Amino acid sequence: MKRTGEQFRTIWQHPENPAIVQIIDQRKLPHEYVTTDLVTWQDGATAIQEMLVRGAPLIGATAAWSLYLAAIDAAGNDDNKATVLTAADALEATRPTAINLRWALDRMRKVIEASTPDKLAETLAAESRDICDEDVEISRGIGQHGLTLIEEIAARKKGEPVNVLTHCNAGSLATINYGTATAPVYFAMARGIDVHVWVDETRPRNQGSQLTAWELAENDVPHTLIVDNAGGHLMQHGQVDICLTGTDRTTRNGDVANKIGTYLKALAARDNGIPFYVALPSTTIDWTITDGLKNIPIEERDPNEVSHICGRAGDQLCTVDTVASKTRISNYAFDVTPARLITGLITECGVCDASEDGLAGLFPELARKTG
Amino acid sequence: MKRTGEQFRTIWQHPENPAIVQIIDQRKLPHEYVTTDLVTWQDGATAIQEMLVRGAPLIGATAAWSLYLAAIDAAGNDDNKATVLTAADALEATRPTAINLRWALDRMRKVIEASTPDKLAETLAAESRDICDEDVEISRGIGQHGLTLIEEIAARKKGEPVNVLTHCNAGSLATINYGTATAPVYFAMARGIDVHVWVDETRPRNQGSQLTAWELAENDVPHTLIVDNAGGHLMQHGQVDICLTGTDRTTRNGDVANKIGTYLKALAARDNGIPFYVALPSTTIDWTITDGLKNIPIEERDPNEVSHICGRAGDQLCTVDTVASKTRISNYAFDVTPARLITGLITECGVCDASEDGLAGLFPELARKTG
Repeated sequence: MKRTGEQFRTIWQHPENPAIVQIIDQRKLPHEYVTTDLVTWQDGATAIQEMLVRGAPLIGATAAWSLYLAAIDAAGNDDNKATVLTAADALEATRPTAINLRWALDRMRKVIEASTPDKLAETLAAESRDICDEDVEISRGIGQHGLTLIEEIAARKKGEPVNVLTHCNAGSLATINYGTATAPVYFAMARGIDVHVWVDETRPRNQGSQLTAWELAENDVPHTLIVDNAGGHLMQHGQVDICLTGTDRTTRNGDVANKIGTYLKALAARDNGIPFYVALPSTTIDWTITDGLKNIPIEERDPNEVSHICGRAGDQLCTVDTVASKTRISNYAFDVTPARLITGLITECGVCDASEDGLAGLFPELARKTG
Repeated sequence: MKRTGEQFRTIWQHPENPAIVQIIDQRKLPHEYVTTDLVTWQDGATAIQEMLVRGAPLIGATAAWSLYLAAIDAAGNDDNKATVLTAADALEATRPTAINLRWALDRMRKVIEASTPDKLAETLAAESRDICDEDVEISRGIGQHGLTLIEEIAARKKGEPVNVLTHCNAGSLATINYGTATAPVYFAMARGIDVHVWVDETRPRNQGSQLTAWELAENDVPHTLIVDNAGGHLMQHGQVDICLTGTDRTTRNGDVANKIGTYLKALAARDNGIPFYVALPSTTIDWTITDGLKNIPIEERDPNEVSHICGRAGDQLCTVDTVASKTRISNYAFDVTPARLITGLITECGVCDASEDGLAGLFPELARKTG
């Protein structure tokens, strides 16, 4: 497997033992590139919970493959379908904010129910593979539709580089390949457009400095790392042409839950007249809710994510505690950016307004089904 | 010297050898409390440049005391006044954004010019001491005027804690004592008001987690550390009653240069109808400029401030590099918050609108002198 490019995947079956699923342990990037074997569904649950994998689409895919592992484990049991459905419930509780997790599990539940018990594992492998293949096609669609926005800016800037600001990692590493927010950037690069990406560090887990910077470097995309505090200053001084982020859940009316701090960048973009786009697969739309601020549960995570950080000290990796031990820490993982601050949503089916009409225009059947 | 409280000072003459000035090496907090001797004026310049001391008022005081050290060194020379004036020019170049540095040096230059050569050192010691004593009185004034704002919120909340959000360290450690943004909090605590402070981590140098959290803990002020990304979310959910920050330079019309990221918090405060106040000694007002965005030079600092961080690993202090070595980093230290986003300015002479009229109303003579 190549680390980037067309053949890149973030989750795959072991080439010699298909009963093992492999992932990249993203906690070790950019310092070490290490793959990890998932042998049981519990390995998958741990990988999601402890963030070996993260990013809404990859979380969904990992949950799907975990059910395949559960089916292998339960093979030959009379109640194997019930066992796998129990695993699905446990997996659903691993991360409360990401909607793809629920979406992938619901899709798998239907397949479990329809499957014959003796074919369960192979049916779930096929479905997991489909979820991954479809996700790559979704990223391609987002890349192509987002490319148009970048092309327009490039034409206006007449050869000057297009400066994109992104927050967190909504890249290849968050999906199966290409990413969501990064897909338009990769497609623009392939088209020969001069693009430069401002990469928000993304405290507390530093997905920007540790994952986005890593994958942009691997793909030769010019980029500069900045602290999360810097984006407003850059926007005030004309250094940002477009903001592109991903999302963990989008409401029916276009409110966007994404990594904590996204809302602050959207405010700065509006204050400076800079377009703020959110890239999303339609699977991250939660058609059942219309008020992101009230209805999306915001995960609180371990305070140690804020106080502790891993880095290189000479040849060694070392985790240091940067905070005085008696300091109380609060660690909200996401915030909600209201639709009013979002210029548009880039989906696999096109770009639309961040509104119920916008989303329903692109996805009329999905909107009707849960309307 | 006590570490906090009424007798606390951040810069002082050595109790046994008055030719030495002592400071706290703030780079080592909160892990170690270490004081450092300044023996030459160059020691003072290094302390400012390498941020052993930081915070506009303390930078000014350190520069003043450095000139006293230069005068001791040049004592007996024919051209001692010229030598000390040369040191003043070198000190002025150490930090471009903080206006107090220029203010303190201009004040010292006048004293140098008026002094007899044989009395130079003792005259500069007296002036430095005056600058420090006056700064404590300024912080007291800010504390008393800011207290009124907190009392009003406390009265409205009927016993519920008043939640203050602050960015960077505008505390005792940034001044001589009490701080600017923290002074109203300390005065409210002394008045028995239930106060809680959200402390922004303040990347890249973590002055929030390493200095503000430390001094609030030493003074028993309830506080919670958050990443810089979290403030918007807290404001959306009613968890912040008032934002209080310091400033490194305030323009004639009330634009505020402060630690990078302040602007993002001001945007969030406005979006959520939360008062955003900036606390400042009148010495941080730059009466000569009226457009902060255009006219305040924004210092770019070493990229290693972003990539490297020091913390405890077991019993040891260890600095780790958190970023892949090929990643390019940009590190702007300050941003400018336009006056339109600021509810009011808290000064030693009262609270006013962030506007030329507001400032000139409180400081008519200063406004006239440079009008």
